[in-house]
Amino acid sequence: MSLEIYLDLFSQPCCSVYIFAKKNNIQFDHKKISLFEGYQYSEEYGKINQLRKAPALKDGDFCLAESVAIMLYLAEKFHTPDHWYPADLQKRARVNEYLSWQHSAIRMHGSKMFWFKLLIPKALGVEITKEKMDNAVDDLNASLNIFEEKFLQDRPFVVGDQISLADLVAIVEIMQPVGAGMDVFENRPKLKAWKD
Amino acid sequence: MSLEIYLDLFSQPCCSVYIFAKKNNIQFDHKKISLFEGYQYSEEYGKINQLRKAPALKDGDFCLAESVAIMLYLAEKFHTPDHWYPADLQKRARVNEYLSWQHSAIRMHGSKMFWFKLLIPKALGVEITKEKMDNAVDDLNASLNIFEEKFLQDRPFVVGDQISLADLVAIVEIMQPVGAGMDVFENRPKLKAWKD
Ligand SMILES: N[C@@H](CCC(=O)N[C@@H](CS)C(=O)NCC(=O)O)C(=O)O
Ligand SMILES: N[C@@H](CCC(=O)N[C@@H](CS)C(=O)NCC(=O)O)C(=O)O
Repeated sequence: MSLEIYLDLFSQPCCSVYIFAKKNNIQFDHKKISLFEGYQYSEEYGKINQLRKAPALKDGDFCLAESVAIMLYLAEKFHTPDHWYPADLQKRARVNEYLSWQHSAIRMHGSKMFWFKLLIPKALGVEITKEKMDNAVDDLNASLNIFEEKFLQDRPFVVGDQISLADLVAIVEIMQPVGAGMDVFENRPKLKAWKD
Repeated sequence: MSLEIYLDLFSQPCCSVYIFAKKNNIQFDHKKISLFEGYQYSEEYGKINQLRKAPALKDGDFCLAESVAIMLYLAEKFHTPDHWYPADLQKRARVNEYLSWQHSAIRMHGSKMFWFKLLIPKALGVEITKEKMDNAVDDLNASLNIFEEKFLQDRPFVVGDQISLADLVAIVEIMQPVGAGMDVFENRPKLKAWKD
């Protein structure tokens, strides 16, 4: 029974799962889906992921949603190198702390920027008001400040010298407002050094 | 060096950490803080938790935020019974899936209900428009449907016969709109059976 992963690479959480699987030479059947075309609403996909979001994994009869849960599953099943999800109690806690925090911070504010700057104006022809846009920029900046000052501090990566799931999830999300034309690295030398 | 946990028991994520620690007879120094009085903005608390949210943990020199990360840390450090965070690959994945999903679902929509029905009208004397309130109720109901149909299905708990961190985090959040006067269990026999 093969391992299937359903991905739309326009989606940030899909990118992190894809990069993680590829970097770790995990063999999987890459099911390419299009959210834009609404595949998530199909009856077929409902059986794989009732949440109707991408990514999703199917391993034999076992179906799993949520990028973070999928990567943790792959990490354990394929014994990926320790640095991705360190066994050390405190390092692991730091990764979990980031993975938990980002949902309502960088993830939420970064996507909003993408919606406000690109999708809504381009797809619906509606311009976002300046006030809404300014608020969204402020929220995103506040999250980026926290990322630099709390999560990175003076380290090359969130938990020290090596990349972990926290960094991977962070970079795909932080690149989203970049894709929408916002230079998030301007005046942020720490963030820039980390990205490079 | 003692284990300190900073909690305001009016906060849902604090309640889950508190219940988890108590249920597992984990000894800790309970630091009672008041978010309402703004303790999270104090210089002192900034050293414990730069995110300026509750809960937070301090174990010797190690400080940790985010309720989920804190409970996973305690579970591992104190070897709590397996059912809380099962070692079994698929069961653990199911718990992680829930813990990841809830942030932008039940947690977000449940808190909104609390803000809209109680805090904003009582503290600021501002009534929420009917449209906003209806949208918020719809969002919460959609999340509760998913909780029943995807996460519970016909099982007593999210991962089967025993309670896990997923159920604990869910129940404290689902009780929040209840506290705001919304009967979330009406017409939801599965949810009610699970709560009982
Ligand atoms: N927390 C989820 C988020 C998944 C998610 O929101 N995916 C989006 C794409 S970025 C999606 O499938 N959207 C389609 C839809 O909502 O219809 C994860 O990390 O996997
Ligand atoms: N995702 C965090 C949420 C923490 C959180 O939002 N705590 C709220 C209370 S429920 C808080 O500290 N609010 C104070 C503030 O924002 O000033 C967790 O699970 O610990």
